[in-house]
Amino acid sequence: MELLDKLNWRYAAKAMNGEKVSEDKIERILEAARLAPTSSGLQPFEIIVIKNQEVKEKIKPVAWNQSVITDSSHLLVFAAWDTYTAERINYMFDLTNEIRGFKNEGWENYRQMLLNSYPQKDAEENFNHAAKQAYIAFSQAITAAAFEGVDATPLEGFDPTAVDEILGLREKGLRSAVLLPLGYRKEDEDWLVNLVKVRKPMQDLVTVIE
Amino acid sequence: MELLDKLNWRYAAKAMNGEKVSEDKIERILEAARLAPTSSGLQPFEIIVIKNQEVKEKIKPVAWNQSVITDSSHLLVFAAWDTYTAERINYMFDLTNEIRGFKNEGWENYRQMLLNSYPQKDAEENFNHAAKQAYIAFSQAITAAAFEGVDATPLEGFDPTAVDEILGLREKGLRSAVLLPLGYRKEDEDWLVNLVKVRKPMQDLVTVIE
Repeated sequence: MELLDKLNWRYAAKAMNGEKVSEDKIERILEAARLAPTSSGLQPFEIIVIKNQEVKEKIKPVAWNQSVITDSSHLLVFAAWDTYTAERINYMFDLTNEIRGFKNEGWENYRQMLLNSYPQKDAEENFNHAAKQAYIAFSQAITAAAFEGVDATPLEGFDPTAVDEILGLREKGLRSAVLLPLGYRKEDEDWLVNLVKVRKPMQDLVTVIE
Repeated sequence: MELLDKLNWRYAAKAMNGEKVSEDKIERILEAARLAPTSSGLQPFEIIVIKNQEVKEKIKPVAWNQSVITDSSHLLVFAAWDTYTAERINYMFDLTNEIRGFKNEGWENYRQMLLNSYPQKDAEENFNHAAKQAYIAFSQAITAAAFEGVDATPLEGFDPTAVDEILGLREKGLRSAVLLPLGYRKEDEDWLVNLVKVRKPMQDLVTVIE
């Protein structure tokens, strides 16, 4: 399967060379993230695409000074909803009705059920749930980058509060969940590039109930 | 890009026909999940593959009686570590040293840093972190299923405590995070199959900082 070849090709580049990724590749990577399935189809996250070098420079010190932040071409920030609100839920249900061109009782009942549960829940619990949905899209963006021959470094080592402040995310009801620098590997400065990929053997990962 | 075609093909099948998915397809879907990147490479989850019909029947009532549970060919349960322990962290670092055939000071320092942080954290926080890593693999399994022409229904609508009990997960230090029934769509009973895929327009998802 071609997918497995791509997943074997990819790795978390530890050094990038600053080369720019073409906009058409970036568009397809974002499209893969956009197509990701999410709980109740709510897509409870946004993606901030940072091309601005000064903004990357501000983020670097709050991300363990990792060079890929500034040597990436585009730095993606996956920012999840800080909570689920009625407005946000209604937006997606209204959009669905608009796109599909009809209202449906079952679907409207489902909307009411979500309106009667999510907004009343603890915001932290809702953010955690939203962040997981962002990870589904994040994962699809990583895979899409591999299909484009673009290196992508999944990056959790950063101070989310500081990144939220730099990007003004809290005011928008968002919280940074995970980062994804996109660019091209700099082989001679990357300690990881030539090392064997390590994964648990299948028997330690999977249990089959026959 | 072929990936985008596959992501457009897939949808969350709401009815499956009970047809079996071949074991070689299942193996490649699991391999995609195994190759998923995870934080510090810890792969903090396991996958339970349920072929047994009786076990599926037990899970169905604690998963809103969704028919895909029992009409799937294989039901995957992504179960995340209930917390990070020294033993679990050491397992992955030892495995890495074994596979790569050398020890490295930087890597050993990193091991110590993780040993000095994760196990002391709140178990719930650790589980939430582990579950996000499981979602990266879950997402890659969904994509892999699409490449295999296999339907996959991302499924969060279940009672995790009940599923943990049915599968004896807590005793193994695991907690169910998300389900993925795999099988083949039953078109004449699936209300979703012919509806247009709905996603936010790109401008509502993405903000570019030039």
